[in-house]
Amino acid sequence: MTSSWLDLPADHPYGITALPYGVFSGADGVRRVGVRVGDQVLDLGAAAGSTGSGTARLWQQPSLNALLAEGKPAWESARAWVVGLLSDPELRAAVEPHLHHLSDVTLHLPVEVADYVDFYASEHHATNVGRIFRPDGDALTPNWKHLPIGYHGRSGTVVVSGTDIRRPVGQRRPPTEDQPVFGPSVRLDIEAELGFVVAGGTELGSRVSVDEASEHLFGVLAFNDWSARDIQAWEYVPLGPFLGKSFASSVGAWVTPMEALQAAKTPLPQQDPRPMDYLLGDDLFGLDIAIEVELNGSVVARPPYSTMYWSPSQMLAHLTVNGASLRDGDLFASGTVSGPEADQRGSLLELTWSGEQPITLPNGSTRTFLEDGDTVTIRYSAPGADGIRIGLGEVTGTILPAD
Amino acid sequence: MTSSWLDLPADHPYGITALPYGVFSGADGVRRVGVRVGDQVLDLGAAAGSTGSGTARLWQQPSLNALLAEGKPAWESARAWVVGLLSDPELRAAVEPHLHHLSDVTLHLPVEVADYVDFYASEHHATNVGRIFRPDGDALTPNWKHLPIGYHGRSGTVVVSGTDIRRPVGQRRPPTEDQPVFGPSVRLDIEAELGFVVAGGTELGSRVSVDEASEHLFGVLAFNDWSARDIQAWEYVPLGPFLGKSFASSVGAWVTPMEALQAAKTPLPQQDPRPMDYLLGDDLFGLDIAIEVELNGSVVARPPYSTMYWSPSQMLAHLTVNGASLRDGDLFASGTVSGPEADQRGSLLELTWSGEQPITLPNGSTRTFLEDGDTVTIRYSAPGADGIRIGLGEVTGTILPAD
Repeated sequence: MTSSWLDLPADHPYGITALPYGVFSGADGVRRVGVRVGDQVLDLGAAAGSTGSGTARLWQQPSLNALLAEGKPAWESARAWVVGLLSDPELRAAVEPHLHHLSDVTLHLPVEVADYVDFYASEHHATNVGRIFRPDGDALTPNWKHLPIGYHGRSGTVVVSGTDIRRPVGQRRPPTEDQPVFGPSVRLDIEAELGFVVAGGTELGSRVSVDEASEHLFGVLAFNDWSARDIQAWEYVPLGPFLGKSFASSVGAWVTPMEALQAAKTPLPQQDPRPMDYLLGDDLFGLDIAIEVELNGSVVARPPYSTMYWSPSQMLAHLTVNGASLRDGDLFASGTVSGPEADQRGSLLELTWSGEQPITLPNGSTRTFLEDGDTVTIRYSAPGADGIRIGLGEVTGTILPAD
Repeated sequence: MTSSWLDLPADHPYGITALPYGVFSGADGVRRVGVRVGDQVLDLGAAAGSTGSGTARLWQQPSLNALLAEGKPAWESARAWVVGLLSDPELRAAVEPHLHHLSDVTLHLPVEVADYVDFYASEHHATNVGRIFRPDGDALTPNWKHLPIGYHGRSGTVVVSGTDIRRPVGQRRPPTEDQPVFGPSVRLDIEAELGFVVAGGTELGSRVSVDEASEHLFGVLAFNDWSARDIQAWEYVPLGPFLGKSFASSVGAWVTPMEALQAAKTPLPQQDPRPMDYLLGDDLFGLDIAIEVELNGSVVARPPYSTMYWSPSQMLAHLTVNGASLRDGDLFASGTVSGPEADQRGSLLELTWSGEQPITLPNGSTRTFLEDGDTVTIRYSAPGADGIRIGLGEVTGTILPAD
């Protein structure tokens, strides 16, 4: 068990077994890559300079994309180097001046997002949505257990945690009307998801197998896929969600490398029917990540990522089976995480059963969907190395009224 | 009427009234921005240097994105400058050395694509698809005449004309089967579309009105949205097309500025019901662009863009009404262009009525969907200034067998 020269409790969620990367700026406004440790961020470019590491150019960057482009062996070396910086007492004098308290820096989008794909990988979520929207039909569509359903979203509106979210306006058709009306969404929702940062460009026409996926999965981040259910319901047939989702998707500021999540790997739920060969391999895994959804300071759901049906490696294999190429900074999200229990649902659509069963907050107010001024924070944690539970960051946002 | 010192017939489709921009490289492999005139490309960075223009940095770029970022007044100045270069006899000696024959250069993707959105703006296409897939239902979905339906596609697999297209593999469910099978697509199709290059970033939470759209519409390009109908049919419920489209979308190498298309503007078909206010304004227009779809050298369809239901300005207003921001290099496509006549349909799905009515090529062979080795070329032309018909480029691709 490696210990740090930092004065951190052994069980601190952002101790030396977590070490997520992010992008921050200080008073000069220049964005640079850092690593979170405790409640501080280490300026890695400055630390590289003062310790004689040749890696400064990887860190003096406005995003993680330069690191992503280096490939898995470089990611492993970088992490080992960071652990060394924070554990070797002889380096303390050179490193410590480059630690900044989180309250003194501004956090930015950690990745320059290339393409963004949203999956739909929770069987419980897909079943709930099917029951709500098609009460007389099969809950799951016939394709659901054969492939990880996904679609492309808008990468230009992926924003960092803390960005306020303006309530979107658009067309919706109220259930009692024949014709659509125009105005602010009245069914503004969240989707508690997990995001995966993809790295390692591939050639058009090539495929990434399940067992090659780990070469391209850099890490995970907190993810809230804000959704205007009423806009979405009116627009989405036949070509899928568009404006109901494209106004904003919020990501956490911290990307936790997959290396930190080895202790969180769990078996997948049983997959029946057996997936096709291209979705099989040795590297199928779930992740025992705990998620807490907080609305105005109260926890309203605890969706367990371990219940997700499809492995991240299966999602990536599916995404590329048609020959679609990957770029550094591609991002995919899991889709809403919902567990089997009523308090494990990752969207208000499910938690309130499409608004029919409002939830009551501790102050006595009730919610079906989000109201202006509401703040949603989603937090993530998982088992890390050495038996220490690690934090995977959070994603937060407050709803501004439509304008 | 401006005339050029170049020895071009007055009615040449790439004369001084067209002047599309593109990105090319010569023997040194360095990408730079040029303008097409006749069968040559003018190296604009070199021409800027030899004529004392201060614009060289706009052109010594691997894409048009630097020009896009300058905004509409700069686009107009740039075009006036290019016209001057090619029409002022006193500049001939300085400019002529920087003309390169097209056969001596390699053309590249003209734009670094940010987000790519595909619309569905042809009433005839949407009606045909509805009749094919839902023979007993309404041809158009209830939302179709209220909003321009669209969805996000994969910007990382937008490729330049001339790129070979590998037949995608994936899951499909044959009509006679309960279970999906895996293998190469057997219903590989084209979609003859028009692409629009968007410029001028906007803030998250803002909207672009119909009348502001022209500030953000830089120009048009040829667009073929390759589609694996069988993969798409199995995957697309409920979240829309994904792998059936994401293997490749081909764009023309030349971007024709909207300024060159003023004579091609036409009234829209009547829109009934009246669109909502945010889809109205003074700048509603169709485009009288002729499209020819050629399969292995034979014209198989002539879809008229003038029959499209939604204006490009309406598509952009819709895309941003929810507050979604724009970036330089965003790209949207019109959706398949199909006219009312049987020989005006822009996809094989429609031309062969889902494969039931094969088309016969002049050599006696028949086609339902694309076979390996087939080459599809889609050409575009429109009325330009001075009564001269201008070329808007072409997009071509050849199908390689699945691997």
